[in-house]
Amino acid sequence: MKKSQFKVIEGSVVAPKGFLAAGVFCDIKRLGTGKGSHKPNKRDLALIFSKTPASVAGTFTTNQTCAAPVKVCIGRVKRGIAQAVVINSGNANACTGKPGLRDAEEMARIAATALKISPMDILIASTGRIGVPMPMENVRKGVLEAMGVLGNSAESAARAVEAIMTSDTRPKQIAVELKIGGATVRIGGMCKGAGMIQPGMSQSGKRPALHATMLCFLTTDAVIAAKTLQTALNKSVAQSFNRITVDGDMSTNDTVLALANGEAGNGALSAGSAGLAAFQLALDYVTLELAKKIVFDGEGVSRFVTVRVDGARTTAEADAAARAVANSALVKTSWCGGDPNWGRILCALGYSNARIVENKIDVGYSLPGDRRILQSFRGGRPTSVAFETLCEVTTAPSFDLHIHLHVGHGAAIMYAADLTTEYVEFNKGDVNDPSTLGG
Amino acid sequence: MKKSQFKVIEGSVVAPKGFLAAGVFCDIKRLGTGKGSHKPNKRDLALIFSKTPASVAGTFTTNQTCAAPVKVCIGRVKRGIAQAVVINSGNANACTGKPGLRDAEEMARIAATALKISPMDILIASTGRIGVPMPMENVRKGVLEAMGVLGNSAESAARAVEAIMTSDTRPKQIAVELKIGGATVRIGGMCKGAGMIQPGMSQSGKRPALHATMLCFLTTDAVIAAKTLQTALNKSVAQSFNRITVDGDMSTNDTVLALANGEAGNGALSAGSAGLAAFQLALDYVTLELAKKIVFDGEGVSRFVTVRVDGARTTAEADAAARAVANSALVKTSWCGGDPNWGRILCALGYSNARIVENKIDVGYSLPGDRRILQSFRGGRPTSVAFETLCEVTTAPSFDLHIHLHVGHGAAIMYAADLTTEYVEFNKGDVNDPSTLGG
Repeated sequence: MKKSQFKVIEGSVVAPKGFLAAGVFCDIKRLGTGKGSHKPNKRDLALIFSKTPASVAGTFTTNQTCAAPVKVCIGRVKRGIAQAVVINSGNANACTGKPGLRDAEEMARIAATALKISPMDILIASTGRIGVPMPMENVRKGVLEAMGVLGNSAESAARAVEAIMTSDTRPKQIAVELKIGGATVRIGGMCKGAGMIQPGMSQSGKRPALHATMLCFLTTDAVIAAKTLQTALNKSVAQSFNRITVDGDMSTNDTVLALANGEAGNGALSAGSAGLAAFQLALDYVTLELAKKIVFDGEGVSRFVTVRVDGARTTAEADAAARAVANSALVKTSWCGGDPNWGRILCALGYSNARIVENKIDVGYSLPGDRRILQSFRGGRPTSVAFETLCEVTTAPSFDLHIHLHVGHGAAIMYAADLTTEYVEFNKGDVNDPSTLGG
Repeated sequence: MKKSQFKVIEGSVVAPKGFLAAGVFCDIKRLGTGKGSHKPNKRDLALIFSKTPASVAGTFTTNQTCAAPVKVCIGRVKRGIAQAVVINSGNANACTGKPGLRDAEEMARIAATALKISPMDILIASTGRIGVPMPMENVRKGVLEAMGVLGNSAESAARAVEAIMTSDTRPKQIAVELKIGGATVRIGGMCKGAGMIQPGMSQSGKRPALHATMLCFLTTDAVIAAKTLQTALNKSVAQSFNRITVDGDMSTNDTVLALANGEAGNGALSAGSAGLAAFQLALDYVTLELAKKIVFDGEGVSRFVTVRVDGARTTAEADAAARAVANSALVKTSWCGGDPNWGRILCALGYSNARIVENKIDVGYSLPGDRRILQSFRGGRPTSVAFETLCEVTTAPSFDLHIHLHVGHGAAIMYAADLTTEYVEFNKGDVNDPSTLGG
């Protein structure tokens, strides 16, 4: 990726002109006495506000059990215009039936009244436990409090990103600046992830070819039509959030929203223009960096593995091969141990929906950014590269796995993680303390 | 299942008349000094021999990376006749290229010379590490030793089943006796499993609609034509081994072989006959009992869950729904904790390839054999059944999960297991002791 065309800056979602953010604590998990494993008083409601109406685009989980806020947003994003996003953690508002839909709409209405804009211009997103009614009095209190502390400082953005975290251990945010014509355009973003992570989002919520709750909120001051923004976002999500997996579970709530308020005053980003190409490059960078942060900070993750499949018959088969390897329990536990063996990888390729020919397959390892690939398996046979030499790569905190099938030209990448005892410990919870359970 | 038509007896694979078995130690893992986590001197080569040529049938992994013995057996089983099976643990002879194929054939040849029968009448099966050349001198020694100790005692059968175990903690064997006409017919079986368990076998190794190494060897003294036996075996495997999952990984070596030597002297088991129906019922029982034993003894398994999906649009969709739930990392970790929540189950159903309508779904739990189902979710909403009451079922070592989709008449069952820290610990191994790794 040519970074020279843009630079990374501070400020996350408030880096672009005209955006404000806030994050507050309103006890949406209703921890009460503080029982449970979660940090008490962690902020749990975020508000993002654009001073002027913005073009909007979004991609949403294709899970049929999609949450109420997803259902509400899919319709509103189609209008192409929005001005604010209310986000809560601690409660997913999923599997909550018609009351859940009313609550989601009410969340927007509370913010609309306070912000004196139409409820239709307000989007919502939720993450947390499934199947629990949303505590609307807490939400009301939170929205009003957030309204009062909206700001455009890095601190405001930091409070907003804290408020969307669940099992995340680190905030995930980024912003970049680029020149389009004479204008300075900025793109900011924040996201959360951790578990239930193998997004397969589309614009409409209808299933595309593929398969956390991961939530991502992007802001930009670019002048860009909603339709163009949607096309750009679809491309960016396809190469970032839809290419990650932590545990292979696609959430009910996965959402990416992008707001563009036009405050940068750049010339129109028309299809095929150099300006749009530069914008796409920057948006791709922002989304990929955020997506990788989700995998690095996945529940219990100790090792980040980039699975690169080349030489499949088709792109779809390359994707199938990469996902089979990236989601195999046995491959993932072997990564946990830093094991460079190729047997489980060959096994997973063999049961994937990709056509393989065993004696054509190459498997190799490299450190990220290192062009030197250590081949462990070539043409269906192990190479003479020493086990200890391979271990130097596979015991690193991050490495690339290169698989070449040599039966075509299809290629795909998955950003994946190991499976650890910490993941199991965290997710098995304790029935004697239901606040530790997954809902 | 109507057990009244048959009774469970002792003797495993040597219960049917005319079968002999043996199990010996020949150090196929070449542990040498005993380094490694595995039990030293565990028997690792088994031999099953029928005094007379037998009808044969088999089902094999549909993994494209299938092992050399699988490739050899697929061809030989088509001939419809066999007399012996040589099985080793400790080395899968998978991903071993042409030398591996030669070794697999040589294993049969060594036994054929010793037993004075045609090599083509000898089948072979292997389980263990992938990608390691077979130590043929050890195999030769083992086969000759096994030849000398073939017997029809329960002890001989016990030694054979010990020899096929890998990470199994318990031997898995069974035998039944039934009357067909005036004749007494017996069916015996032994199997091994533990990890890399989600078989998807077919007769030809060609992929059927679905997806450990699991190995199963069945013997019977029934008079039955090879073609009829194959049809019966296909049916039995479809409702047993192809319905289990431990970790969702389909092995390179999964194999079920059935030998019928006709020593019982029953009348011909023709299609549609009462005799064949009785035989099928007994074979179904034997294979299902063995399949369940594999799940109960899966790597690190602490809880056995029978996932029952009803009301799907089609059988294929019911299967997709059941597999999505049975293989979800988040559902499996929640089972580990004994968590009765339905959120992760609804989420997995939502991303499965089964069509669902959220507000039609029922989710319930029962103890095995108990007709009383505790509904935790009905028509898209949680029920009032108390969390503690549900926990009484879901914290048991074994329970049934009932999912009704209410969109059609498709039904499917999966026999599944939880995901534990022990599974991860076992499979991550230790790169400083490569004998603990998965190959």
